Amino acid sequence: MKLLRVGPVGAERPALLDEEGVLRDLSSLVTDVDGALLGDSPALDRIRAAAAAGVLPRLDPAGLRTGPPVARIGKIVCIGLNYHDHARETGATVPAEPIVFMKAPDTVVGPDDTVLVPRGSVKTDWEAELAVVIGRTARYLETDDEARAAVAGYTIAHDVSEREFQIERGGQWDKGKNCETFNPLGPWLVTADEVPDPQALGVRLWVNGTLRQDGTTAEQIFPVAEVVRYVSRFMTLYPGDVINTGTPAGVAMGCPEPKPYLRAGDVVELEIDGLGRQRQELKGA
Amino acid sequence: MKLLRVGPVGAERPALLDEEGVLRDLSSLVTDVDGALLGDSPALDRIRAAAAAGVLPRLDPAGLRTGPPVARIGKIVCIGLNYHDHARETGATVPAEPIVFMKAPDTVVGPDDTVLVPRGSVKTDWEAELAVVIGRTARYLETDDEARAAVAGYTIAHDVSEREFQIERGGQWDKGKNCETFNPLGPWLVTADEVPDPQALGVRLWVNGTLRQDGTTAEQIFPVAEVVRYVSRFMTLYPGDVINTGTPAGVAMGCPEPKPYLRAGDVVELEIDGLGRQRQELKGA
Repeated sequence: MKLLRVGPVGAERPALLDEEGVLRDLSSLVTDVDGALLGDSPALDRIRAAAAAGVLPRLDPAGLRTGPPVARIGKIVCIGLNYHDHARETGATVPAEPIVFMKAPDTVVGPDDTVLVPRGSVKTDWEAELAVVIGRTARYLETDDEARAAVAGYTIAHDVSEREFQIERGGQWDKGKNCETFNPLGPWLVTADEVPDPQALGVRLWVNGTLRQDGTTAEQIFPVAEVVRYVSRFMTLYPGDVINTGTPAGVAMGCPEPKPYLRAGDVVELEIDGLGRQRQELKGA
Repeated sequence: MKLLRVGPVGAERPALLDEEGVLRDLSSLVTDVDGALLGDSPALDRIRAAAAAGVLPRLDPAGLRTGPPVARIGKIVCIGLNYHDHARETGATVPAEPIVFMKAPDTVVGPDDTVLVPRGSVKTDWEAELAVVIGRTARYLETDDEARAAVAGYTIAHDVSEREFQIERGGQWDKGKNCETFNPLGPWLVTADEVPDPQALGVRLWVNGTLRQDGTTAEQIFPVAEVVRYVSRFMTLYPGDVINTGTPAGVAMGCPEPKPYLRAGDVVELEIDGLGRQRQELKGA
């Protein structure tokens, strides 16, 4: 299933994009798409049954904003340098184990919402990422099978990053990762049963129409199941938590000088096979 | 005012510790102590008026658990190496600007709740910290006065830290800061009007009765107002967000070998002048 949330900021309603690509209203069945729903298999089954029975009301998509596909996200765990090609372009050595940093849930916006270039920023960069949404509490998982069972589904995250703040202002990356609007998410949460192999997804990103990232999750150093299992040894993952699993090669930081960092007026578009597409205009904060 | 939350985990009710030290029930006035309340001056004034009028019902403190004093925390921003004496003991150079990292709100427990030593941990360490609770949205603040106006109040945070996870497993500190139960908070949120000088507070911590930290916020490299103003340039702070402002000297990592890292069975007690006291027993995760 493709679950999403549509409507004005802060007043989104739960919806389904059905197999014919028709938008359906879920608000008679569930209050929202959030950790509570994703951890509730019977509720998800009721949605499936209603969709199959064709009883869900249509929603007119015209003029309707798409919000982030998950409400009340508890935390966003991010994996750094998780693609062989991205590690090469940044001149970093391949990490021996996942690098973990955090984004606050309040950085999340819808997939087509405005992204703000922070005041004083000269190195705002893009990062297209496969995002994992957790559906089951995960704590000291032992096996990749347990890890896979903890994944509710997948979506696209734009892990917007300010490289000067991230790297040159003390060395802890969070400072360049938590600026306002720095985590567009969506458009849909695609349930895990419809993503048979998360390690075979094309990941693409364009800036002003120029293809900048053209990677595949096959290049991930630590695949999704290993990431979930690993993270669960250091922190407890809860339904509605999100893991941004890293970005492939092609970011501005990896380009020759002058590096094409983002500026107000730029347009970024992202897509991942089967997970839809995002489009953001950049503005000054 | 001293605001707090008492009752079982997940079912705490809002309360006030009045000027005579009597516990008063606030649940007829407000639904909870959270960002919505802290950003709502009229509601805070109603609590003040009711307390002054002596109309708030008493609560029997016997056997009553104290929860974290703020519900629905949006994010926890942490400042690293913010005390001159702590920078010295860890051998770190004094940072030129605040070092910022993050803890997830799901690490928060009550001030006297159990703290879990993570599986595989050999370097679980303590850090007594002055925590700032935000009461007003703070975005690109220009002055220390604006920063002070954004502070709802103060409480104690125990910024529990696993040093191997933090430092030796990739270098991004969040991995050693986000383990389950790693942020005891409380007992009270003391409103900012009752903390005239946050830079003149004694901070003390004992392990199994031995005084280990005996510092003062006068040693802070970046004082509270500067921290709030600085952080607001990199991320937007919202009511109910928390900033852990760093720890004074005296952590296990700063001790000579063999360093006295925490183990199951240890008891940690913390206090800050005017902000109360915490006590945690450690158990295995």
